[in-house]
Amino acid sequence: MFEARAANVIDWCRRLSAHTEVPGTITRGCLTAPMRLVHRDLMDWMTRLGLSVRIDAAGNLRGRRAAATTPAATLYLGSHLDTVPDAGAFDGILGVVWALAVVESLGRTPLAANVEILGFSDEEGVRFGTPFIGSRTFIGTCDEELLARRDASGVSLRDALVAFGADPFDRDADMAEAVAIGYLECHIEQGPVLEHLDRPLGIVEHIVGQTRADVTFRGLARHAGTTPMHLRHDAVAGAAEWIVEAEQLARKTPGAVATVGRIGAEPGAVNVVAGSCRASVDVRHASDATRHAIVARLREAADHIARRRGLMAAWVDQLDQPAVTMDAEMTAALVRGVESAGMSFERMTSGAGHDAMVLAAHMPVAMLFVRSPGGISHHPDESVRVEDVAAALAAGHHCVLDLAGALHG
Amino acid sequence: MFEARAANVIDWCRRLSAHTEVPGTITRGCLTAPMRLVHRDLMDWMTRLGLSVRIDAAGNLRGRRAAATTPAATLYLGSHLDTVPDAGAFDGILGVVWALAVVESLGRTPLAANVEILGFSDEEGVRFGTPFIGSRTFIGTCDEELLARRDASGVSLRDALVAFGADPFDRDADMAEAVAIGYLECHIEQGPVLEHLDRPLGIVEHIVGQTRADVTFRGLARHAGTTPMHLRHDAVAGAAEWIVEAEQLARKTPGAVATVGRIGAEPGAVNVVAGSCRASVDVRHASDATRHAIVARLREAADHIARRRGLMAAWVDQLDQPAVTMDAEMTAALVRGVESAGMSFERMTSGAGHDAMVLAAHMPVAMLFVRSPGGISHHPDESVRVEDVAAALAAGHHCVLDLAGALHG
Repeated sequence: MFEARAANVIDWCRRLSAHTEVPGTITRGCLTAPMRLVHRDLMDWMTRLGLSVRIDAAGNLRGRRAAATTPAATLYLGSHLDTVPDAGAFDGILGVVWALAVVESLGRTPLAANVEILGFSDEEGVRFGTPFIGSRTFIGTCDEELLARRDASGVSLRDALVAFGADPFDRDADMAEAVAIGYLECHIEQGPVLEHLDRPLGIVEHIVGQTRADVTFRGLARHAGTTPMHLRHDAVAGAAEWIVEAEQLARKTPGAVATVGRIGAEPGAVNVVAGSCRASVDVRHASDATRHAIVARLREAADHIARRRGLMAAWVDQLDQPAVTMDAEMTAALVRGVESAGMSFERMTSGAGHDAMVLAAHMPVAMLFVRSPGGISHHPDESVRVEDVAAALAAGHHCVLDLAGALHG
Repeated sequence: MFEARAANVIDWCRRLSAHTEVPGTITRGCLTAPMRLVHRDLMDWMTRLGLSVRIDAAGNLRGRRAAATTPAATLYLGSHLDTVPDAGAFDGILGVVWALAVVESLGRTPLAANVEILGFSDEEGVRFGTPFIGSRTFIGTCDEELLARRDASGVSLRDALVAFGADPFDRDADMAEAVAIGYLECHIEQGPVLEHLDRPLGIVEHIVGQTRADVTFRGLARHAGTTPMHLRHDAVAGAAEWIVEAEQLARKTPGAVATVGRIGAEPGAVNVVAGSCRASVDVRHASDATRHAIVARLREAADHIARRRGLMAAWVDQLDQPAVTMDAEMTAALVRGVESAGMSFERMTSGAGHDAMVLAAHMPVAMLFVRSPGGISHHPDESVRVEDVAAALAAGHHCVLDLAGALHG
């Protein structure tokens, strides 16, 4: 039953990816013309399913399936509809299309709760330089500073919302309901873990906390020919030694990742021993205490290496974002849903941030990951397998029936 | 006697450094207006010393002290007059001013040989993007390709020579004489070795050979949060491991230097495991065989590290310049000169290229290094000590009397 629905979900994602700002790529910022076309197509489907459809104060697409009786609590399902530049066809939007297909799979089954699909307007943060605008507005933390932010063309978020037909002044009315059962998000894994373990699905227990920093080693810029090895204070060599240590430290700590993704040397000439070398570092772990301990050891290692080499090491923190734990009861319901569907899964930590992380401050949340072939993400080659999407739909079907309460009458 | 002359030499170098293209810095390319002012001032001094003065086909400044009798061979003394951008006051020009002060110290002593001072127009290669234009023309290897080279403003070397008043068509007449005793160059060390050993002077035995190359490690660009350490193919981590090995290998090889002065990662984002990382490498040694062996081991290390990490390592050679050995007899004469002056010295290898390297193809050459305080070179803080310059003048005085043959009549 779910294989055909899964093929349809993949087909929808592929077709919606044609709505792009840059032809030949998948590039869809929030509140743009191609986003409106995505809304139009999804609204058609929502309307056919009998949902009540609207665009909220943040430009989020919302489609609501009413409970059999009132008053009723609401279960939210969804993810985001925007993309990074030159993206794949599944990051974010799969979770929205998945939610529609799950609701479709419910047919006319009467439920005790409302089920509302959320298609967040912005998660990637590309257009206004700050992520999670859709989910932040949804939980009521959109403020004047956020509304005044401007995109690269100078358009403010407030003006973009008005131009899109959203009503940024009606935020209170559009917040999440006080009586929410919770939020269930389905998303591609964006990493290679499930593929490596040969599992179709992952159930997220934590979203990692992150530290981002810049580390600069400063030595003495000297002539590469006339300065013997033992009289050098080489900033690149010091940074290289530290990068090797950082990698070893992360490898020794289960669940930790540490990444130097950006590096540059000054003056940066082939024939000059570098006087300074700056590297970025990104450290993530599900435990904030473990992450802070790693960061402390990385700082010590930088100082130690610098001292031994006659360099100076300067550490500048850029981000310290705490980890978020998924709701235990919601997650247990998701596990039951996956097990009812007869699927294998892996309990895991998400190394990336998601809308569920923002919503966790306001309501119970749970997250379902779908295997990412090759671990490829934020790239046109991003894909999903039909059997994995079918597993996610079956799991979602059972989980929604469980959480929203099928009424057997 | 030589202390006063040394103070005068330093004073001359400081005053000539005011002739600059960029006020507030010392920046003097070849064949520029400030170079003409340097020529004017030095020509005044040369004329006062009774030298016959001219600008040759390459815009080199030449001042000739005639032998007591004809025909006579010629001993050349000198260095270059151009600078790198934002240079110090002594690199190159010290050797020309030193030559003038040495000739001045000879007074009216009749010599068996002509002594000719050479102030090369271009050694640094900044203006036309290729070094040693002055000395290459002097030994007759300036060709049409070189003359057609253009500076950043589109002016060809040929046009720059004509505008400067040089005659690029008279190259044959301006070449070094067939019967040359040799070329003696005095230059700042540009490194910390003499200071570290507490010696005022160095006598160069070899100028190192150089290999320059680019090494690129290629892996897989992946999400820094969702890709566990054991499933990464991290190009920056591979490059860092290789840089540490390269440094260790050079440290273990006496006389070798290996430098990574430039490094960059792609895509170069804090939250993306780098898909590629490119590093420059500069390897130098007095023995070409040793240098080639080091380069072979560096290539093996890159391949080995890449293989173990699931990366690819690509090596692109940029330069393979052989080492040059100074002339044994000229060098012995220089040693005698230093010893006659009662000075201590160190036999050493030059890690940088010099005009003497180019002239070695045509005549015997020897080189005298003057200690560089702090090893500082190509920087406004570059300096020399008056006692070290005095030692170099005394040594030059004795060496020239020896090589050019004082006639006791």
